[in-house]
Amino acid sequence: MILGIDPGTNLMGYGVLKVTGTKVELVTSGVIDLRKVGDVYLKLGEIFRRVQRVIDAFLPDEMAIESPFFGANVQSMLKLGRAQGVAISAAISRDVPISEYAPTKIKMAITGNGSASKEQVADMLRRILAIPTEEMPHHLDATDALGAAYCHYLQMGRPEVEKGASSWKAYAQKNPDKIHGM
Amino acid sequence: MILGIDPGTNLMGYGVLKVTGTKVELVTSGVIDLRKVGDVYLKLGEIFRRVQRVIDAFLPDEMAIESPFFGANVQSMLKLGRAQGVAISAAISRDVPISEYAPTKIKMAITGNGSASKEQVADMLRRILAIPTEEMPHHLDATDALGAAYCHYLQMGRPEVEKGASSWKAYAQKNPDKIHGM
Repeated sequence: MILGIDPGTNLMGYGVLKVTGTKVELVTSGVIDLRKVGDVYLKLGEIFRRVQRVIDAFLPDEMAIESPFFGANVQSMLKLGRAQGVAISAAISRDVPISEYAPTKIKMAITGNGSASKEQVADMLRRILAIPTEEMPHHLDATDALGAAYCHYLQMGRPEVEKGASSWKAYAQKNPDKIHGM
Repeated sequence: MILGIDPGTNLMGYGVLKVTGTKVELVTSGVIDLRKVGDVYLKLGEIFRRVQRVIDAFLPDEMAIESPFFGANVQSMLKLGRAQGVAISAAISRDVPISEYAPTKIKMAITGNGSASKEQVADMLRRILAIPTEEMPHHLDATDALGAAYCHYLQMGRPEVEKGASSWKAYAQKNPDKIHGM
């Protein structure tokens, strides 16, 4: 079970994928809507508790997060860093290991094109995971989170692709640069 | 009891002040040294658990953090935001309310000069809190954290100064802009 998180200060996307051998299924996905929470600490508290709740409900073995795009200004970067730090803390508090992937890496892994649109990523995920149209998440933040989870699955879960790196540990040892985006 | 935190990605300062009526005493202070922890998630995990441990040991009623200076680049701001988010999460996980003060506000409150040096802040705190020289924290990150805690005390704890705002709740209602620095 892999939890994907797309951290944001207004909408935080999440998605859970179940991996059984080479089969991957959508378990759940959605967004944590923070727009109505005015106070910044209540917002962070909401992220912390909601991510903990998703972890407690689905017991993921790993968490994958999308690392943010570095185009923003220092103040928005600080806000985003805080939101990320809080989501990461929720995983730490439940002993869930964390991996991080850059947006271009996720897009490349899923669509074969590092500059694909969010819509293209969502459409590809719908096909790969055979998600019925009525079950597709409405928010692109949710599909982005699923994208991070699926990208992590591709990195860790396909021994036939990553020859000799059949375990996550072996993969981590072989590719330390791919594990931590910072 | 007020916990002060000076968030940083290499050294995180902390300090605990005990308030009894108008008397304020130093209880403990120190730094969490993160320089030897290479992995970014282990670093964040260390911050989370160490801040939780300080909270569990001293049971502070409030936490005050120094909000960061906005001079850095977006990447270092993201790192700092994450470290902050993790320290904030530790407080959230223990239901400790959080307040935040800009560095200039802390300097002004303690020395009367918003552009005082860290050394001047440390020296003033040593005098105000009557800290014996041998008990003075070695790291300026620790005195910065004490500064945040003392600044919070000045804001909340002196009914004779803040007339009509004798409780923290009343103060917060009257001064929402002073509570959250973001």
